[in-house]
Amino acid sequence: MKTRAAIAVAAGKPLEVTEVDLEGPRAGEVLIEVKATGICHTDEFTLSGADPEGLFPSILGHEGAGIVVDVGPGVTTLRKGDHVIPLYTPECRQCPSCLSRKTNLCTAIRTTQGQGLMPDGTSRFSCGGETIFHYMGCSTFSNFTVLPEIAVAKVNPDAPFDTICYIGCGVTTGIGAVINTAKVEQGATGIVFGLGGIGLNVIQGLRLAGADMIIGVDLNNAKKPWGERFGMTHFVNPNEVGGDLVPYLVNLTKRGADQIGGADYTFDCTGNTTVMRQALEACHRGWGQSIVIGVAGAGKEISTRPFQLVTGRVWKGTAFGGARGRTDVPKIVDWYLAGKIEIDPMITAKLTLDEINKGFELMHAGEGIRSVVVY
Amino acid sequence: MKTRAAIAVAAGKPLEVTEVDLEGPRAGEVLIEVKATGICHTDEFTLSGADPEGLFPSILGHEGAGIVVDVGPGVTTLRKGDHVIPLYTPECRQCPSCLSRKTNLCTAIRTTQGQGLMPDGTSRFSCGGETIFHYMGCSTFSNFTVLPEIAVAKVNPDAPFDTICYIGCGVTTGIGAVINTAKVEQGATGIVFGLGGIGLNVIQGLRLAGADMIIGVDLNNAKKPWGERFGMTHFVNPNEVGGDLVPYLVNLTKRGADQIGGADYTFDCTGNTTVMRQALEACHRGWGQSIVIGVAGAGKEISTRPFQLVTGRVWKGTAFGGARGRTDVPKIVDWYLAGKIEIDPMITAKLTLDEINKGFELMHAGEGIRSVVVY
Repeated sequence: MKTRAAIAVAAGKPLEVTEVDLEGPRAGEVLIEVKATGICHTDEFTLSGADPEGLFPSILGHEGAGIVVDVGPGVTTLRKGDHVIPLYTPECRQCPSCLSRKTNLCTAIRTTQGQGLMPDGTSRFSCGGETIFHYMGCSTFSNFTVLPEIAVAKVNPDAPFDTICYIGCGVTTGIGAVINTAKVEQGATGIVFGLGGIGLNVIQGLRLAGADMIIGVDLNNAKKPWGERFGMTHFVNPNEVGGDLVPYLVNLTKRGADQIGGADYTFDCTGNTTVMRQALEACHRGWGQSIVIGVAGAGKEISTRPFQLVTGRVWKGTAFGGARGRTDVPKIVDWYLAGKIEIDPMITAKLTLDEINKGFELMHAGEGIRSVVVY
Repeated sequence: MKTRAAIAVAAGKPLEVTEVDLEGPRAGEVLIEVKATGICHTDEFTLSGADPEGLFPSILGHEGAGIVVDVGPGVTTLRKGDHVIPLYTPECRQCPSCLSRKTNLCTAIRTTQGQGLMPDGTSRFSCGGETIFHYMGCSTFSNFTVLPEIAVAKVNPDAPFDTICYIGCGVTTGIGAVINTAKVEQGATGIVFGLGGIGLNVIQGLRLAGADMIIGVDLNNAKKPWGERFGMTHFVNPNEVGGDLVPYLVNLTKRGADQIGGADYTFDCTGNTTVMRQALEACHRGWGQSIVIGVAGAGKEISTRPFQLVTGRVWKGTAFGGARGRTDVPKIVDWYLAGKIEIDPMITAKLTLDEINKGFELMHAGEGIRSVVVY
């Protein structure tokens, strides 16, 4: 079949919107009509050429929502008409990782997905006879796309596509980091470094988990009302604290009879390795946990004195918020429908596919939180 | 009263065994006759002058066992004749840390202990009118010593002092890192870096926890029979693997349908920050946890790529094996009496107090595992 898509033709070049060829679903695969897709920093990371594993030409996009329009042989858990969210982290429920009960990092199709291919080692996309690579197993910058059954979450059909697409990455990553990875408890103190699309979702995750003190840290004062909108109780601009950030945050979080400061949980949503260290060291002695969410530049390293760990701080990371896609993503859609979490105010631009490069421009300009392409 | 003790007169000098003055216990304190004490690398760390917080003159020693011979006013949980183990990590059961249920790092007397003083800000030791500092709140290199009630664990009186003294530090640190900090489960895979007095106790902790694969890593092949003696199933000498250590260990631990390698739990018992990084990176993707036990040199830092954390590895540390001294140390003594853990073979030298410097010489020479002074 033919479908319209935005092709990443080469690193650093604008996407080219055109018609491409798409093969139908093979065994264990489904054809999805993408109804909406977010534009995420990870797409930009790859498009810019900074991603050492980036492949071109490819169809980017990994934050979508749509409808199943065809299923291949052997597909049992999905049928035509199902409303779905594509998953860049699949959930096969059969590999050692899925069965470990300890991680969401399913390994079933990891190798081929990293190669920009479907599990059988081929691409469904081409243009003029030339193969076009899949991206993160999703390629939601195409109006139609093919995914393996294990990489598709079936969700409540009452939910609007142009907001729940954001659950395909940003919302789940932020809220999941709080719920699944940190397992934040009622009354906790949390610090969120970086109030972009992920950071705001960490903030609303902390609100959902019942944190008492939710501190947002950002160099841009314009982020303050955004943080407050989703539950932030304190805002800190590192350029305005008049000294080192870590002691400032430790002092801000002093509590209890012994007046030891430090947060119960901190979250890096910047990708900056210096900030990751600050996030760890702003944790409470004895039990503070720091969760790395941001993706660092190639070759960058994090450092600290081991004393920080020996005295009880824990350094962790999270991918897709520790969420098992098929199991947890439908729940987050339900939480959105029930009003437990918010998404609508974070969708600050809606674009057509032809306008997709404008979404990247808005991201570069730091304007708004999330741009969504509606097909 | 007068008591014989080994005084650390200055950094880098041998201990001087002599008679010192000891004041009796004040309110909330107990007088203990130390019957035996281990000589630990931490004592050596301070004696050498490498410890930036080391104080002189002081009475070192923090790995003892003895009998309560007098109690000060207000002491309710101990009486004369109780067999006890002094605790360098107290357990007040009332501070925010004790009440957090998340850490063993009681803060009740942290400030004065670090100053080499009792909680009231004074020392009980002197010699010729000159104050001598306490050490780690214990000073077990004195035949008699005074401790706060909250820093004393009452243990089973059937246990011999000359072996259970080792529970005052090394045994509890190693076994506790496995049981309390890592919470190793039946069937797990563990790697222990450094097969000294701590590493061997981590190995027997892994055996106790039911680990299936227990890999010991040491540059000294003479440690192999020692590791095997306590449950090690595989020995790796990094100088003999013919390549990088981390990929070798990852390969050695490959298992499951997807043949992903890496240990469920790794433990650094070396204090070497390069080894700490290897220990983290030898962990299994998705859930591997690395526990820092060793104490690094002043100013040393650990580093890694944040990708290691984002893909599910966890970096932790432990102090006193995460054990709450008054609650957990008596249990470990009982485990020893019941034969669940071994100590006797690790005590490779028994010395008199007059021979205490020989214990440090044996440590420097790397001979044996633990030297114990028996009073």
